[in-house]
Amino acid sequence: MRDVFHEELESITADHLKMTSLVRDAIESATTALLTADLQLAEKVIADDLALDSTQHNLDERTINIMARQQPVASDLRRLVSSLRISADLERMGDLAHHIAKLARMRYPNRAVPDEVVDVITEMGMAAQRIVEKMAVVLEFRDLNRALEIDKDDDEMDKLQRKLIGTILGPDWVHSVESAVDMAFASRYFERFSDHAVSIAQRVYYTETGDFVPKS
Amino acid sequence: MRDVFHEELESITADHLKMTSLVRDAIESATTALLTADLQLAEKVIADDLALDSTQHNLDERTINIMARQQPVASDLRRLVSSLRISADLERMGDLAHHIAKLARMRYPNRAVPDEVVDVITEMGMAAQRIVEKMAVVLEFRDLNRALEIDKDDDEMDKLQRKLIGTILGPDWVHSVESAVDMAFASRYFERFSDHAVSIAQRVYYTETGDFVPKS
Repeated sequence: MRDVFHEELESITADHLKMTSLVRDAIESATTALLTADLQLAEKVIADDLALDSTQHNLDERTINIMARQQPVASDLRRLVSSLRISADLERMGDLAHHIAKLARMRYPNRAVPDEVVDVITEMGMAAQRIVEKMAVVLEFRDLNRALEIDKDDDEMDKLQRKLIGTILGPDWVHSVESAVDMAFASRYFERFSDHAVSIAQRVYYTETGDFVPKS
Repeated sequence: MRDVFHEELESITADHLKMTSLVRDAIESATTALLTADLQLAEKVIADDLALDSTQHNLDERTINIMARQQPVASDLRRLVSSLRISADLERMGDLAHHIAKLARMRYPNRAVPDEVVDVITEMGMAAQRIVEKMAVVLEFRDLNRALEIDKDDDEMDKLQRKLIGTILGPDWVHSVESAVDMAFASRYFERFSDHAVSIAQRVYYTETGDFVPKS
């Protein structure tokens, strides 16, 4: 009985990793679409989000069925509840990549990103990918050191967001209000994307240790 | 045993209603603070968010304990899983009210809302309150007609957001980029607030009927 249960837990982790891989592709493509006004790539991210939603839906159904059949208690039950929350965070990360792709599509054939913020948007995209890759290691190997590192990567993302907002609100901004609002939303999507990765890392940390991540 | 279980379900609903009441106060006060540059009221919303977070935390612990003790199957288990998701939505609604209050605080002693958008922000605040009040009825009485209505109220909120964005990006906008970005974020917070209420109504609908809310 317990062996079947642990196989089932592993298959949930496998699905989380599959979702993580879809999310990583989505944020990478969405960033490229935004930076290069690539309509086709933006459309692909928007369409692929459905696959992520359906993976989440099927996974959650399976998780609830495992709860019903195995009647887990204590730490096993907490692990399953945590799995449901992790899949919700992953689904939301996909939505945020989808929002970034929609910004690219909305301004096509123009590029939504003015020259002055190309660097910071590029850095936000790279930071998002780094965070997702680290999150995959946390999910697969329950690596608690990496879980703690993600908090610092998130601080870096917050710094990038402040830098971008400083630029669009600064005296040298020569572009339209529309462009400023686009970039403000883009930075918000990257920042929220990163927050959900932090939340996933914290859930793994809590499930493994019974403690919350210490405040830095 | 079943009677105890149903009492426990009722006590979860009571906590959801307590959270809903905190969320309603928060969005009402945050809107007023934003519209009147009321620093004290903004600070109160920000401080009160902690009470909401701690109610959610305690409620979720209790819900997981009920799962462990009662070993529910089928619809009872689904109801408990749904309860965890509802409390997460409510907590997030509180965060969004908190974000609106922080906008008010950030621009104090100035008012963040320029004259031209006072009306639409007022309407968004009123729409948010209407949605929250309807959501309370859905949660308390499992009222499926009201659950369907919330979808339409959300369409109204989306329209208000488009109106606001149209104004700040329109040719008559004489205010700063900063002000436009503030109002864009404010409208996003109201819109997301409303989305979470829709999501709660949909969960109640699904738990009661086994069907998803039909697409309008």
